[in-house]
Amino acid sequence: MSPPHSPFVQAPRSESYSAEDPLARSVDACMHPDGRRVWNLECRLAHRLLRWLGDPPLCLVLWNGEEITESATTPVARVVFRDRVTFWKVLFNPHLCFGDAYSDGRLEVEGDLVSMLESVNRSLADVSISGNRIQAYLRAMYRARPNTLTGARQNIHHHYDIGNDFYRLWLDDAMVYSGAYFSTPDLMLEDAQRAKLDYVCRKLWLRPGESVVEVGGGWGALALYGVTVKSFNISKPQTEYARRQAKAEGLGSRVEFIEDDYRNITGRFDALVSLGMLEHVGSRHYREFGRMMHRCLSPMGRGLIQSIGQDQPAKINPWIEHRIFPGTYPPSLREMMELFEPCGFSILDVENLRLHYAKTIRHWLQRFEASAASVARMYDERFVRMWRLYLSGSCAAFSSGALQLFQVTFARPGMNEIPWSRASLYGY
Amino acid sequence: MSPPHSPFVQAPRSESYSAEDPLARSVDACMHPDGRRVWNLECRLAHRLLRWLGDPPLCLVLWNGEEITESATTPVARVVFRDRVTFWKVLFNPHLCFGDAYSDGRLEVEGDLVSMLESVNRSLADVSISGNRIQAYLRAMYRARPNTLTGARQNIHHHYDIGNDFYRLWLDDAMVYSGAYFSTPDLMLEDAQRAKLDYVCRKLWLRPGESVVEVGGGWGALALYGVTVKSFNISKPQTEYARRQAKAEGLGSRVEFIEDDYRNITGRFDALVSLGMLEHVGSRHYREFGRMMHRCLSPMGRGLIQSIGQDQPAKINPWIEHRIFPGTYPPSLREMMELFEPCGFSILDVENLRLHYAKTIRHWLQRFEASAASVARMYDERFVRMWRLYLSGSCAAFSSGALQLFQVTFARPGMNEIPWSRASLYGY
Repeated sequence: MSPPHSPFVQAPRSESYSAEDPLARSVDACMHPDGRRVWNLECRLAHRLLRWLGDPPLCLVLWNGEEITESATTPVARVVFRDRVTFWKVLFNPHLCFGDAYSDGRLEVEGDLVSMLESVNRSLADVSISGNRIQAYLRAMYRARPNTLTGARQNIHHHYDIGNDFYRLWLDDAMVYSGAYFSTPDLMLEDAQRAKLDYVCRKLWLRPGESVVEVGGGWGALALYGVTVKSFNISKPQTEYARRQAKAEGLGSRVEFIEDDYRNITGRFDALVSLGMLEHVGSRHYREFGRMMHRCLSPMGRGLIQSIGQDQPAKINPWIEHRIFPGTYPPSLREMMELFEPCGFSILDVENLRLHYAKTIRHWLQRFEASAASVARMYDERFVRMWRLYLSGSCAAFSSGALQLFQVTFARPGMNEIPWSRASLYGY
Repeated sequence: MSPPHSPFVQAPRSESYSAEDPLARSVDACMHPDGRRVWNLECRLAHRLLRWLGDPPLCLVLWNGEEITESATTPVARVVFRDRVTFWKVLFNPHLCFGDAYSDGRLEVEGDLVSMLESVNRSLADVSISGNRIQAYLRAMYRARPNTLTGARQNIHHHYDIGNDFYRLWLDDAMVYSGAYFSTPDLMLEDAQRAKLDYVCRKLWLRPGESVVEVGGGWGALALYGVTVKSFNISKPQTEYARRQAKAEGLGSRVEFIEDDYRNITGRFDALVSLGMLEHVGSRHYREFGRMMHRCLSPMGRGLIQSIGQDQPAKINPWIEHRIFPGTYPPSLREMMELFEPCGFSILDVENLRLHYAKTIRHWLQRFEASAASVARMYDERFVRMWRLYLSGSCAAFSSGALQLFQVTFARPGMNEIPWSRASLYGY
């Protein structure tokens, strides 16, 4: 292949130039005579940025229209920098500033946002395996916000108290805000969320009359599903919503929604469930969480914890931590064991359902996009873009394997009254 | 409580004596007029021993016929000390000397051996939870034998090279020496072992033409089951047996049995299987094992590791480690993650099959007892008693939850060509 050329200046052909040499290509590219000139250095840095990202199949478009690619395959999307300042910000702090620039509209993604983010995740994973430490270094700059009793309340308020009306626009009708279980891939979201609640109850082999405690009950879907429950939550709007629903459905005597922290749970229960709440506990507090379970579970007690996780411990993307989910941390399975091992709980079953979460978020995204105009009226266009990026990024993370979804079933040690096999979970 | 008395002085009965007071009972017990006198101190220590064990429902019978109990419930078995020396040895070093004394016939268990060991496991578990450190201290005295390249060969030789004829007496016809899978509890052992091999292959969604590497292939059952395999093993007699079987069944071209250490495995494979071998690796070597998997698995590679495990890290019983399985260590699930996390493998599924292993060993025990006379002729009575204790102890450990059986399925990170759900494992 011959090297690319500026349309105006014929670059001298020499042995030191080759199609594979990005520097060579960037030199040519910067000859572009556009008015909003791009410095040679910026072209080279754009190439460098792509290489840092592990050469994803993307086309970076600079503010003068210049197109920069590294990968030999057809780009899955074009990432357009509207101005120089945005480019430099993203360059210096991609983890935080990419999201901010996208939210502000100073950076645009032309093409499917999920596919674009998936491709970056996949190329970044290759870079990580081969030992590039820059990612780790950049992420290490950020400290997650603490999940003390007060901190946790603020962190949860930041995300979950945006407004019930907003979440109603794009969640299923039971308002389940955690990964669904698609027993068959073509299930509707509503059915898949019901299937998840059913699956969870089966995994816990709940029997009539047993008491259940739920840690982080969201808008109350599991409790309202038909399980006698005390459901704890530190989000006021969620708790109030769940109470209203229980009253409307005449379930007031069976279900109790309590606005309190998991550290304050008292009582004895046959089963404990926590769906998509452990992410907000923070790995420093797992022993506290474990002690609470040890205190609250009966001698025949068992539990199920569903949590977003990772293959290896790594800080979460700072943009997500700062703008979307303060204090959040998805643990590796090894880190999750800190919940169970110190108190001697016995792990019965771990299932990784990340592709189910990816599919769940695809459904949410579709509904979110269909309601984007309403969301913009409720908040503003920046909010819409922020949430579009967050949902797309989460979907891409699950589908590319950057995030996992662990469903862990455990029991008191030595308990033999457990299902003989898993076949009963699947209709046998 | 009043002080204990000499056997020759009638203690005054007072309000401070009660049937529940072990001291009071020991005082009475020591009045027994048997010729082989038991010192007062020994009676008290026998009571103390039972309390150290967490008051299991056992009756200790001393060499003068004296019976000592602590638990209020009916004893499940009588543990008879034939002489004073045995009693003191077991007292000072129960973990090692109980097994030795039983093997030598200097200690007898009247009643079901498995039930007796189960009851001790269960009472010990309660003691451990409430913080008795004596167990941990006693076990910490023993160092496991190293599993270096040479050490591992010696350790494996000690157990697996006793003689193929011996194992043939009580294993199933395919000679599978790891936990079976009883898809229904009433399955025959032969069927349950075949069901296990089938289950493992399903969990790995093996497809025609795919290459499989087996780490620790035993007598070759999985390889001979119909999967194209390179099977590694450092036991010479096992490898030779497997080769002969492959030749006899005309499978020579499809299966290769290699007598070599897991650290020396080379080549690229679509799947890796290891059934009941990780226990012999030792947690210090998990990273080496993980690097081998990272090196040997193709980009679409996945694996299944079945290993005995524990709820919490703890040294294995020294008698088992010294007399039966040198160098063995059953990891906690957290410790097992050391295999996967450093190389970024993604955990797809963990299943705890401890009750299936307990049932497997029940079958082995039945067959072993039916062949006990043959075993005694091949070796001696001491060998029979040693293996009876080892099999009974293992059965009790699995059924009481002192040991777990983890079946962990994993894959290269970000691999999406995985089964959509587990339903297909169960016929859906």
